[in-house]
Amino acid sequence: MHEKRLEKIINSMKNHHIDQMIITSPDSIFYLLNEWIHPGERMLALFLNSSGERKLFINELFPIQKDLGVELCIYNDTEDPIDYLEKAINPHKTMGIDKTWPSHFLIRLLKKKSGLQVENGSIVVDKVRMIKDEEEINLMKKASSINDQAMGKIMEVIKTNKYTEMEITKKLEEIYAKYETNGFSFDPLICYGPNAAEPHHSSDKTPLKRNSSIIIDIGCFSNHYASDMTRSMFFGEPDEEYKKIYDLVLKANLAAISTIKPGVKFSTIDKAARDVITNGGYGKYFTHRTGHNIGLCVHEYPDVSGANDMIVEEGMVFSIEPGIYLQEKYGVRIEDLVLVTKTGCEVLNQFPKDLIIFDK
Amino acid sequence: MHEKRLEKIINSMKNHHIDQMIITSPDSIFYLLNEWIHPGERMLALFLNSSGERKLFINELFPIQKDLGVELCIYNDTEDPIDYLEKAINPHKTMGIDKTWPSHFLIRLLKKKSGLQVENGSIVVDKVRMIKDEEEINLMKKASSINDQAMGKIMEVIKTNKYTEMEITKKLEEIYAKYETNGFSFDPLICYGPNAAEPHHSSDKTPLKRNSSIIIDIGCFSNHYASDMTRSMFFGEPDEEYKKIYDLVLKANLAAISTIKPGVKFSTIDKAARDVITNGGYGKYFTHRTGHNIGLCVHEYPDVSGANDMIVEEGMVFSIEPGIYLQEKYGVRIEDLVLVTKTGCEVLNQFPKDLIIFDK
Repeated sequence: MHEKRLEKIINSMKNHHIDQMIITSPDSIFYLLNEWIHPGERMLALFLNSSGERKLFINELFPIQKDLGVELCIYNDTEDPIDYLEKAINPHKTMGIDKTWPSHFLIRLLKKKSGLQVENGSIVVDKVRMIKDEEEINLMKKASSINDQAMGKIMEVIKTNKYTEMEITKKLEEIYAKYETNGFSFDPLICYGPNAAEPHHSSDKTPLKRNSSIIIDIGCFSNHYASDMTRSMFFGEPDEEYKKIYDLVLKANLAAISTIKPGVKFSTIDKAARDVITNGGYGKYFTHRTGHNIGLCVHEYPDVSGANDMIVEEGMVFSIEPGIYLQEKYGVRIEDLVLVTKTGCEVLNQFPKDLIIFDK
Repeated sequence: MHEKRLEKIINSMKNHHIDQMIITSPDSIFYLLNEWIHPGERMLALFLNSSGERKLFINELFPIQKDLGVELCIYNDTEDPIDYLEKAINPHKTMGIDKTWPSHFLIRLLKKKSGLQVENGSIVVDKVRMIKDEEEINLMKKASSINDQAMGKIMEVIKTNKYTEMEITKKLEEIYAKYETNGFSFDPLICYGPNAAEPHHSSDKTPLKRNSSIIIDIGCFSNHYASDMTRSMFFGEPDEEYKKIYDLVLKANLAAISTIKPGVKFSTIDKAARDVITNGGYGKYFTHRTGHNIGLCVHEYPDVSGANDMIVEEGMVFSIEPGIYLQEKYGVRIEDLVLVTKTGCEVLNQFPKDLIIFDK
């Protein structure tokens, strides 16, 4: 058990008036226990309450060899784990439930403990996880450093102009495999030509043709922590409009980054990026939020959007990824991860952001 | 909308006294609508009730281009989809909930419709999906036929003795990519030597050494339907015990298959396999159930186990996969998919089951 993190969780429970809760997502359990357990369809739940009880409900198929600092409540396939869990619960107090817990467990629990007040308890954990501790910061820096290196390598492969989008994702898999990674943190978005105008294009069999924009949005897991970066480039001779939107997106990325420091609102950061693009005349082509927090999951709580007035704090890590998408023509997105420091922020990606044009 | 399947679902709702329900898993939605939608974290729900209403609650980010035969209830990211869903629900009748629906949706629904009686509604769908219709049977035969061919090809690659377990899984990915498949239906289990004694070994960097048992448990999705087959082989000179357990596992596989016909219990099939192995003196080394149903998911309801006294029906497809695992030595598993016919069963895998020994 990571006692310092647990202490923060217990404080957060108090802030949210949740006296008892279960944490069931493998990433949040890993965050506390430093053990990654894949329970498949079987119930895995870390029960905590404000008086300090901590119990891990786990199927015997997942034997735990080391001392995790929690009481183990082991069940087998002939038993209903809810029968064990319900004994730990105080029926008179609000119970926090992990947002992702499959409903069939919750339905069984509510039948056995009728009248139990339940709440989405994930906010308790999300608010702690959004501030990274030193150990996490080091691992996230490492993951982004690997991603920088992978970006350089995959660009060289793309420049050979021998491979389709999907073949590039295979090459990228091989590149990540050579580093200390656990593979992709999300399906890579390798987008050629008009595909770059779709912010969520899935890599397909499109080959690279001359006079195409290229978006490369990639990330890996390293020691369970995610990286995520986007660079855009051009094969052939870009027209003036492409150069203009590239310049706007780059300025938007830098403007957002320059506003980041403890105390500003997420919505202010979003506005800084959006204003540059809107003032340049392309506001309606920047169709998504500016970024998202990241850590053990590639998308964590909260996000960098106009609707989020939460205050930025030291230790947060999130993406800044403005983009402009001109349907059936091309698209540009430039994304970095940033770490909020005491006085500003540190950009975790070192890979250059100048427009790369190649033609051979 | 696949009207015949919907009719079966409505009948099944009546059998289970569920007047209204939501189906939220992408595979069950595909089963009815013939449209595969990946909603990510956003709510996707097909609402049905016994008076024939059918509504699909879907985020505007997933535009539906064709007529799916359901009323579309489209929401956006600034709205709570539960506000829409609750309007469709009759608060006085039991509501079936998909077993996998994330709890935070259910918690919000229960707050807005206090007193609503909810049940795990997935059994309604599972019981219909367990009997495959003609279209499904054809697709499952095709998926298994591809798997037969892939098994032959990957065995030839293994026999070159140039690759680690993990490298073989990469090669297999390339083989599947050459057919009309959507990739692996589960992470392939390529197990060399003592790794074959772990029924759920994950392929790792183990190289193939002389005098090793090999287990190859592989499957792909083809047109969304899963295949799943296991063969075992030996590199070098197997000892007498290996040959003995291979023979027992093969006999257990055949004994189970010979009992399959409409009207027998799943537990009887399990017993047929288990008896052969137990009588051969290895009962305690056959550590898992004999099989599982399969279709759009690789593991479907129900399973072939001693605890399942349900009756086998025509149109079911499930695996028969007895195994013997001798820790730190070797393991054998032989798995086929079978389709229950009017009078018996048809084995969907044609790949030979005789012991293959190679040594070069």
